[in-house]
Amino acid sequence: MKKIILAPDSFKGTMDATTICNIMEAVAHRQFPTCEVLKIPVADGGEGTVSCFLTAMPGSLVQVKVKGPYFEQVDAFYGLLHNGKTAIIEMAAAASLALAKERRDPSLTTTFGVGELILHAIKCGATELLIGLGGSCTNDGGCGALAAIGVQFYDAQENAFIPTGATLSAIHRIDVAETKLLLDGIKVTILTDVENPLFGESGAAQVFAPQKGADPAMVEALDAGLRHFSTMIQHTCNLDFSNRPGAGAAGGMGAGLCAFLGAKIKSGIDTLLEVTEFEQKLVGCDMVFTGEGRIDAQSVQGKVVSGIAKKAASQGVPVCVVVGGIGEDIAPLYDLGVSSIFSINQNPLPFDVAKLQSEANLEKTFENILRLISAVSK
Amino acid sequence: MKKIILAPDSFKGTMDATTICNIMEAVAHRQFPTCEVLKIPVADGGEGTVSCFLTAMPGSLVQVKVKGPYFEQVDAFYGLLHNGKTAIIEMAAAASLALAKERRDPSLTTTFGVGELILHAIKCGATELLIGLGGSCTNDGGCGALAAIGVQFYDAQENAFIPTGATLSAIHRIDVAETKLLLDGIKVTILTDVENPLFGESGAAQVFAPQKGADPAMVEALDAGLRHFSTMIQHTCNLDFSNRPGAGAAGGMGAGLCAFLGAKIKSGIDTLLEVTEFEQKLVGCDMVFTGEGRIDAQSVQGKVVSGIAKKAASQGVPVCVVVGGIGEDIAPLYDLGVSSIFSINQNPLPFDVAKLQSEANLEKTFENILRLISAVSK
Repeated sequence: MKKIILAPDSFKGTMDATTICNIMEAVAHRQFPTCEVLKIPVADGGEGTVSCFLTAMPGSLVQVKVKGPYFEQVDAFYGLLHNGKTAIIEMAAAASLALAKERRDPSLTTTFGVGELILHAIKCGATELLIGLGGSCTNDGGCGALAAIGVQFYDAQENAFIPTGATLSAIHRIDVAETKLLLDGIKVTILTDVENPLFGESGAAQVFAPQKGADPAMVEALDAGLRHFSTMIQHTCNLDFSNRPGAGAAGGMGAGLCAFLGAKIKSGIDTLLEVTEFEQKLVGCDMVFTGEGRIDAQSVQGKVVSGIAKKAASQGVPVCVVVGGIGEDIAPLYDLGVSSIFSINQNPLPFDVAKLQSEANLEKTFENILRLISAVSK
Repeated sequence: MKKIILAPDSFKGTMDATTICNIMEAVAHRQFPTCEVLKIPVADGGEGTVSCFLTAMPGSLVQVKVKGPYFEQVDAFYGLLHNGKTAIIEMAAAASLALAKERRDPSLTTTFGVGELILHAIKCGATELLIGLGGSCTNDGGCGALAAIGVQFYDAQENAFIPTGATLSAIHRIDVAETKLLLDGIKVTILTDVENPLFGESGAAQVFAPQKGADPAMVEALDAGLRHFSTMIQHTCNLDFSNRPGAGAAGGMGAGLCAFLGAKIKSGIDTLLEVTEFEQKLVGCDMVFTGEGRIDAQSVQGKVVSGIAKKAASQGVPVCVVVGGIGEDIAPLYDLGVSSIFSINQNPLPFDVAKLQSEANLEKTFENILRLISAVSK
């Protein structure tokens, strides 16, 4: 083989996509020393998204001190691509559940630091912002981030404040004049697979706030706050966010960024494949290797394996899938362009034992896949 | 691919080699409809050995009613190969643990029926006998089988009798005159991997009789009987079987057949590969698929995977191994000619769950191996 692309998703709970790519790359270099190996670890917008883009294409990591979820100082980062013209930001860098540590209270947490990253990138000259949503500990509708880039929130007494989940309902007026100037000529894309609306029974608070630490009473209050925020968006921007898919991503930050930054929502994988010029990279490629933690009937509807397979198939490049587990009804994937699917399990062992061996198992499995290819190619 | 050989060992406890071959063959016909598929399921001499030979080469199954382990009548069988010139017999057909059912008493069980099969084959015109030892419920030194083909055993009172484990010590004189005439021009090969001597701490009784139902006192008595049998062989044939490797196979039947039939011991796999002309079949072969229940460092010393790999490598044919589990330190197998090793485990599940899915898992894994080969070959 002369050229291969490694484009695995993470194995949720065991290995991130960049780690998988690096393991596969080392094996590929051993088995096919002269083969060109392109790495495109798949990002979903959540934690690790910046790393995925910087692994897949030239760029630089920018490290910035910003406010964390409780307005404390944290060391955050984002990536600059295309010679600084494009910034890739993951909100998890400043507002992740991990940063909240044991103190999980989505009524008090803020996305302010994410706004500081956005502001820093714009001041550095980025004109296109890719903002990954996911893994957040917040429920502030993105108001913290908006405040950091100049959006002014006022209560009924005309006092300026930075809304959090608990105080969204206190918003009486929003002033976007300063931010409009800042955003002139800036294109913003949100990376997320979440399709939940802002509020209601499928909304951000009802579905996601419990895992962020909210009890049922807090969930009700947060949901009411997001509903009020939707009304304020209608008043301020003349936009109806009462039933917009994706508005509920990351504690309602989807709504805040779409309404006030004119952001468009796209899946992480679609954005990644476009920005890294996946289709151009397929030219002359012998095989694409992808993978995910578990492949099953849902993967046929999913975006990673089926998305990669469709694009590769359109150029006649076979796709081999390496996974942690294989469910039923995967035959339609073969029709989409998947040539073969291999599980990394080397032995019949339960998941809690097997997961400790996942890196070694991936390495061994991928080595044998390449060994077989080598034997057939001779 | 135009021609492949399927030569898997059994997956002990889950699938026999013939079943594995048939599953693989069906997949191969689906994925490569015009490919020539040769099946050589690996026999070790134990149960299933006749089926393996008859799957691997032209021949016929002969069904014969003979004495079972307790001299009851059972439906047994053997195979005729080479237009009837060669017989393949497995002792398990007339003296297996399965035939003993719940009544496991190696002091009383007999190999008489095995001798009846031998006699039948000779009378049908076979001049070469391949006799698989393994899976027996007996400890009679093969005396039952010998009695069936005319060897006469006498006690101190010159009464003729058929010795079993319990009465080996009563043998006072052995008359082989009749049998010598019968065996004139007959070549006998024993198929077994067992290398234990006839008696002593590594002998047939000490090592194998407990799993055949013997308690410690019975083991001692059986061991003393085999020791006495060794003395009688010395007296009768002027042969020293006190420390002969393989003499302890199948309750000492190794000794009985070697001493009185002039049998040579060979491994099942070596015999199978020779009789089925494996090396000639390798000509023009694109790949050999083998496998076993578990591959590990011992497999490097073992005869199946390493034996097949060496022969295939000598003709430049790559070998792909499909297994139920993969242990450590298997790298030397690659040096022997193994191109790649795949586990059939589709999911991280414990063995007691996984084994119920082994046929489906084998089918899926082999399908994806062939799919990958197909994608690379295009």
